[in-house]
Amino acid sequence: MEHNPQKTAEELTIGNRLALAKAISSIENETQEGEEILRLTEHHTGKAYLIGITGPPGVGKSSLTSLLASRLRKENKKIGIIAIDPSSPFSGGAVLGDRIRMKPHNSDENVFVRSMGSRGALGGLAFKTAQASRLMDAFGMDVIIIETVGVGQSEIEIARTADLVVVALAPGFGDGVQAMKAGILEIADIFAVNKSDLAGADKLAAELSGNYADRSNDTPVIKTNCLTNEGLEELLNEIRRLKKSMLESGIFIKRRNERKEQELKNLIQNIIKRRTEAAVNEFGGIKKLLEINGGNVFQAAETVEKKNRR
Amino acid sequence: MEHNPQKTAEELTIGNRLALAKAISSIENETQEGEEILRLTEHHTGKAYLIGITGPPGVGKSSLTSLLASRLRKENKKIGIIAIDPSSPFSGGAVLGDRIRMKPHNSDENVFVRSMGSRGALGGLAFKTAQASRLMDAFGMDVIIIETVGVGQSEIEIARTADLVVVALAPGFGDGVQAMKAGILEIADIFAVNKSDLAGADKLAAELSGNYADRSNDTPVIKTNCLTNEGLEELLNEIRRLKKSMLESGIFIKRRNERKEQELKNLIQNIIKRRTEAAVNEFGGIKKLLEINGGNVFQAAETVEKKNRR
Repeated sequence: MEHNPQKTAEELTIGNRLALAKAISSIENETQEGEEILRLTEHHTGKAYLIGITGPPGVGKSSLTSLLASRLRKENKKIGIIAIDPSSPFSGGAVLGDRIRMKPHNSDENVFVRSMGSRGALGGLAFKTAQASRLMDAFGMDVIIIETVGVGQSEIEIARTADLVVVALAPGFGDGVQAMKAGILEIADIFAVNKSDLAGADKLAAELSGNYADRSNDTPVIKTNCLTNEGLEELLNEIRRLKKSMLESGIFIKRRNERKEQELKNLIQNIIKRRTEAAVNEFGGIKKLLEINGGNVFQAAETVEKKNRR
Repeated sequence: MEHNPQKTAEELTIGNRLALAKAISSIENETQEGEEILRLTEHHTGKAYLIGITGPPGVGKSSLTSLLASRLRKENKKIGIIAIDPSSPFSGGAVLGDRIRMKPHNSDENVFVRSMGSRGALGGLAFKTAQASRLMDAFGMDVIIIETVGVGQSEIEIARTADLVVVALAPGFGDGVQAMKAGILEIADIFAVNKSDLAGADKLAAELSGNYADRSNDTPVIKTNCLTNEGLEELLNEIRRLKKSMLESGIFIKRRNERKEQELKNLIQNIIKRRTEAAVNEFGGIKKLLEINGGNVFQAAETVEKKNRR
C-alpha cells in the first residue's frame, strides 16, 4: 500500500471511498499514517451526527441499522455505518449475516459500511471507533451509525462515542434484567423494542417505560419491527426530537467535548507510548535493557526515564 | 500517614510488619512512594518462592492455603499470603470467611496475610500483586502464597506472577470443563482435587489425570481434603519436586525473567502515564488544553508533544 497520508487525506475529504477505506485500515492497524490522516482532516469534521445502536446479540440491530440507513437515504443523507464485531472481523456467522443484510446498500455510493473487530485491546476499540467515525465525518457523511453488540463494558464505551444512543432489545433476546446487569440500560437515550410481533414485546416495552427496578425512567420506548417497518418512522422522529432537545439543553456539546477530551488523552498516551517504545528499542528491547541493568527492573526503568528526559 | 519511603524501606527489610503493611498500601494506592519503596528494596528480593493457588469459587482455596501455610510453619518458614478478592477488598462474605479461616495465623509473627481487591483496572491488579509479593520477599518471607479466584483472564495473569501454580478444583464446584473454558487448566503445574470426600472426586481426578478433551496431560493430580489433611503432605512433596525440576530445567529462571520483563514494561508504562499527566497539567488540564487549541485535538496533542520534547 502506498504511504502518502497527505494524498489520502485530500482524496478522503473530496469523497474518495478507496481513500476512506485505506484511512480506516490505517487506524485499525494503529499506524502513524492513520493518525497523520486524522490530523490533516480534523478541520473537516464536526458536521456528522453520530447514532449508536447497541443491545444484546440477536435483537436485530443490523436490520434496524440497515432500515434506518435506507430511510435516511430517502432524504439524500450520506450514511456511514461502523459495525463492531467483538470476535473477529470479516468472518463468523453474525458478521456474514450483517453483511448480507447490508446488501441493499452495496451499490449505493452514499452509504459506506465498515466492520471493525476487536483484535487489539477492547479499550482501544472505542478509541479506534471514534477515529473511524471522525474519518467518515471528514469524508462528508451526514449521519454515522455505530452498531455494537451490547455485551460488556467495551461496547458501552463505544456507544458513548455517539451523540445519541439507541438501545435495542427484543423479547426473549437478552431481556431487560440482563441488559440492566450489563449496564446497557443506563446509556440509552431511546429504547427500541424490536421484533414487536413477538410475544412479550408489549410487556418488555411496558417494563422499560414504567419504573424499572426502583428506577424512574423517562427514556422514550419505541416498538419497532424490521419486517413490517413498524415504528421506524417514529424512531427517526424521536431521534430528531432528542437531537434538537440535546442541542438546546447543551447535552450535545457537553458529550462532544467529553469525547474530545477522551480522544486527546488517548492521543497523548499514544505519543508518549511511542516515545517510550523508541527509548526501549534504543537499548535493544526489554530483554536487553534488563540485562544491561543486571536484572534490576527499577534501575532499567530509570535508565529509560533518563534517556527519555534528554 | 508519614511519608518516608527510605525509612519504610529500611524497616521493611528488617522485618517490621507495620512497614510492610504500609508499603503494600502504597502499592495498592499507586503512589510514587510505593514505587520508591520497591526500588529501594529490590536488591533484597529474589529469595522467596511464590506459589499461586487458583481455581473456581467454593473449591476451598483458602483452606488449602491456610493448611499449606501451617505445614510450612512447622519447618519454620516465614510465610506471606496474598488473597485476591475480585469484588471488593476487606468486605463481602467470601473474604470475611477467608479471614476467619486464616485466624490460626493471626497471632503468628511469621505469617503475614494481605487481601488485595480489584479496585482499579484488573490488568493492574496482576502488577500490584507482583509488587506486593516483591515487598513480602524483601521483608524476608521464604514462601509467598498468592490465592486468587480463578474466574477469568485477570486471575490467570495474577497466577502467572507465581513460580508454580496449583489449580484447585472440587467435584461440583466449577468442574473441569468450566475451568477449561476459562483457560485455568492450561496454567496448572499441579492439580489439587480438593474436598476429596465428596462424590465425584475420583472421577474428576481421573479426568484430569487422563487425556482430557483431546489433550494429553502429565500435570500431577493430588486429591486433598482440608478436613482430614489428606493429600496435604503429598501436595507439598509434589511442590518441592516440581520446584527442583523447574530449577534444573531452566523453567524457573525463564518464568522469573518473563515476570521481570512484564514488570519492567509496567513500570515504563507508569512512567509514561505520569509524564503524560504532568504534561497535561502544565497546561491546566485536558479541558483547558483543548480550549487553548480551539477544540482541535491533534493541535492540542501536538502542543503537548512540543512541550515534552523540550
